[in-house]
Amino acid sequence: MKDADNTNSAEMWVSYRSDLEVLDCTIRDGGLMNDHRFDDETVRAVYQTCVAAGIDYMEIGYMNSPKQFPREDFGPWKHSAEEDLRRIVGENDTALKLCVMADAEKCEYEEQFLPAGESVIDMIRVATYIHQIPTALEMLRVAKERGYETCCNIMALSTLREPELREGLDLVVQSGIKAVCIVDSFGALYREQIDYYYDLYHSYAEPHGVTVGIHAHNNLQLGFANTVEAIIKGAGVADATMAGLGRGAGNCPMELLMGFLHNPKYHHRPVIECVSKVIEPMRESLKWGFDLPYMMTAILNRHPRAAMSFKDSDESGDVVGFYDRMLDGV
Amino acid sequence: MKDADNTNSAEMWVSYRSDLEVLDCTIRDGGLMNDHRFDDETVRAVYQTCVAAGIDYMEIGYMNSPKQFPREDFGPWKHSAEEDLRRIVGENDTALKLCVMADAEKCEYEEQFLPAGESVIDMIRVATYIHQIPTALEMLRVAKERGYETCCNIMALSTLREPELREGLDLVVQSGIKAVCIVDSFGALYREQIDYYYDLYHSYAEPHGVTVGIHAHNNLQLGFANTVEAIIKGAGVADATMAGLGRGAGNCPMELLMGFLHNPKYHHRPVIECVSKVIEPMRESLKWGFDLPYMMTAILNRHPRAAMSFKDSDESGDVVGFYDRMLDGV
Repeated sequence: MKDADNTNSAEMWVSYRSDLEVLDCTIRDGGLMNDHRFDDETVRAVYQTCVAAGIDYMEIGYMNSPKQFPREDFGPWKHSAEEDLRRIVGENDTALKLCVMADAEKCEYEEQFLPAGESVIDMIRVATYIHQIPTALEMLRVAKERGYETCCNIMALSTLREPELREGLDLVVQSGIKAVCIVDSFGALYREQIDYYYDLYHSYAEPHGVTVGIHAHNNLQLGFANTVEAIIKGAGVADATMAGLGRGAGNCPMELLMGFLHNPKYHHRPVIECVSKVIEPMRESLKWGFDLPYMMTAILNRHPRAAMSFKDSDESGDVVGFYDRMLDGV
Repeated sequence: MKDADNTNSAEMWVSYRSDLEVLDCTIRDGGLMNDHRFDDETVRAVYQTCVAAGIDYMEIGYMNSPKQFPREDFGPWKHSAEEDLRRIVGENDTALKLCVMADAEKCEYEEQFLPAGESVIDMIRVATYIHQIPTALEMLRVAKERGYETCCNIMALSTLREPELREGLDLVVQSGIKAVCIVDSFGALYREQIDYYYDLYHSYAEPHGVTVGIHAHNNLQLGFANTVEAIIKGAGVADATMAGLGRGAGNCPMELLMGFLHNPKYHHRPVIECVSKVIEPMRESLKWGFDLPYMMTAILNRHPRAAMSFKDSDESGDVVGFYDRMLDGV
């Protein structure tokens, strides 16, 4: 892997960038496929794998509002209550940092963000659409005041007009965050576009000492390639999930990322074991991963929800019909 | 997509390179998963799809020796006899060009290469390991003399020492071929390595008016990404297969490539139809596509045969055991 400043091909393949950190979001992003209903055994297996593999952060769930999303309608990883976290990780006496994602306008952050000293959580990532940035900034402020590392994900990047994106970036990089993530929610970006957005994000982030992260989806089978691309450009945090488990076409697979990175602190074998024994057996019921409907939503730069509902419908065998309806804008 | 000379990001996304050609090798490469036993209906469906989609070339099979590979042990697409071809394509009165692959030392080329006027074949691609180049050159000479376009694939690129590769390139680009392909047989290359090899191949090819092609495999989920990368660099021929059908982890999926290219001569819908109705239904029996064993052979820069035999074995559930044995060099 190359250093950000090194633009000659095929150099630095044997050494590594010690500043790059890896964030596992298997349970958080994968929870979008099962209403966050993972059993404790699965969450504990992913946690223990992250520890054994030397992964830097594990995003264990959402911290969204139990008022908006009643506990009886979702699994525990929609809310990530402290008692649920501790049932899995105890005091988390490991080098792995724990993270939760809080959605702008979906989180009772004044109540849900405990003082950091009372929580096993180390970092809070706030996910926001561009029009929610003022709320996101308030959430980031509260999280930081209470002692957490913070990070901001501006979602649905590929649909944004550039002036609004620039204004949003300008605001969030001044909020004391550790990282701002390039979030390809629709899995719609090609590598030259990753380059373009990396340069844009970096130009806002770097003067404030903020790093740029990457969160890629696999609708065009580019989740891993785009993650590598952002790393080549200089990204400081890379998101990945075991077996690529995540919404729709899924995410950058951790087993590929671990096979690519050369930092000796990372270990591949625990990831192979978790993927083959814990995650792959869920594929038939959770149905994440690349396929034609997810590819089509990405090509049209749309949210994968149309593909998800098509796949759950009685017409799920008629992919050509779905293609025709998507082109018609239905 | 960008022009080869254009190095600014995010330019030329709306226009296209009119010189780029697409080669479908679904039946040829996919035949490595079923001893080339596709029924006529399947081969005809792929052929008709290529015609309808505006694809430039269809590589319909191998033209290997019936003496070395007896007809009773293989399907017809191991030998691609003229009568088998014509049963599918008639006189091929279409804009689609037909191609076969002939392996060095596995083809009775003096007998099997009919005069081009007596065949529906337009192009012969000779596949060669580096030590077989003298034989490959002789095959290319005969093919060209008999009136065919020719192309050369130097296989297992990722294992070659550079002096031998340079010598081989220097020889094959002088043989009157249309294109020399970057062939990532083991699916082991990352995009910076594609850049490196593209520049190397181009430096030999360009003075002789030879174009550079790309043939990528998907062991690291980089088949499509690496194909796009070679196109960005200036490749003139891109290989792809319907649903990525091909040996082991498979190839660059045609449905992704067609979604990426902007040339209006290409049509996406026939490819969607072929993939969903004809190819995907074969996945359970042919078992191509990305998985952990194929990933491991690529990371170790090995032929996928160890993974293929593991997947057919009684131990196919023990992926961690396979990982351990591979690391031990077994």
